[in-house]
Amino acid sequence: MNLVIRKAKKNDMSSVLLLIKELAEFEREPHAVELTYDDLVKDGFSTPPLFICFVAVLKDEIIGMSLGYNRYSTWKGVTMHLEDLIVTRKCRSIGVGSALFSNFIRHSHSMGVKRVEWAVLNWNVSAIKFYESNGAVVSDEWNIAQMNEKAINNFILNK
Amino acid sequence: MNLVIRKAKKNDMSSVLLLIKELAEFEREPHAVELTYDDLVKDGFSTPPLFICFVAVLKDEIIGMSLGYNRYSTWKGVTMHLEDLIVTRKCRSIGVGSALFSNFIRHSHSMGVKRVEWAVLNWNVSAIKFYESNGAVVSDEWNIAQMNEKAINNFILNK
Repeated sequence: MNLVIRKAKKNDMSSVLLLIKELAEFEREPHAVELTYDDLVKDGFSTPPLFICFVAVLKDEIIGMSLGYNRYSTWKGVTMHLEDLIVTRKCRSIGVGSALFSNFIRHSHSMGVKRVEWAVLNWNVSAIKFYESNGAVVSDEWNIAQMNEKAINNFILNK
Repeated sequence: MNLVIRKAKKNDMSSVLLLIKELAEFEREPHAVELTYDDLVKDGFSTPPLFICFVAVLKDEIIGMSLGYNRYSTWKGVTMHLEDLIVTRKCRSIGVGSALFSNFIRHSHSMGVKRVEWAVLNWNVSAIKFYESNGAVVSDEWNIAQMNEKAINNFILNK
């Protein structure tokens, strides 16, 4: 398989957005994606960029992507967060996800970060097993709290 | 109570580090804090800074802090992450945490972010209730996966 993993370019962002939307549809939240092609180009190629993105290319077609950014631990310092790792449905189970994951860890290592972190749905047993077999520790002791735009606006109005 | 919440300055970082270490000791991981005063000054006041920090000041003493940074959602765009919100033990339950939280949400709102997000320990019922009463949605469906420096190095060696 002549799979190439490389850093994404501006004109890959339309394919990247399609992958993001495919995943959102799979998760039954197709309308949750407010992000546009222009946002991805602006945010991913600004100085400094707000994220780094890699694409998996097979026969000149983008079939997967990983996207991440720096975070900051008050115990360890600069860390790397893997926000998304997506492989298009028809190309699953042939090693593309594994190749994207390896590439992302290698990139993080080359940046000298102290930790790589990501979130995984707790029912996704096969993903959790894959991550653990690669040395990750998966913890269920944290909950994720979120305030969306509406909640933020309500909070501001009522305080 | 003459409490002031303000943006942290470089020379507040020794007090901020003491708060970080106090929390780590409370969580019985005193040796987990590898971060130094110099790291905090370098990382928090670089261009661009890697985090933003606010301090709570009472009678000229720093008694609490919040620290956060931007993240990036492939559905929403730029978001804000609250990494730490710490109040020194002797000054708990007098509204300092609430004031730091409000300040952080107001700051995030002024930055125009689409979401504010943070992690909370799943047994910390009082914190979860506080966040929910302020409009946050707290979800237990995600696990956190982490590879520390040793796991990253092992992964690189074995691939």
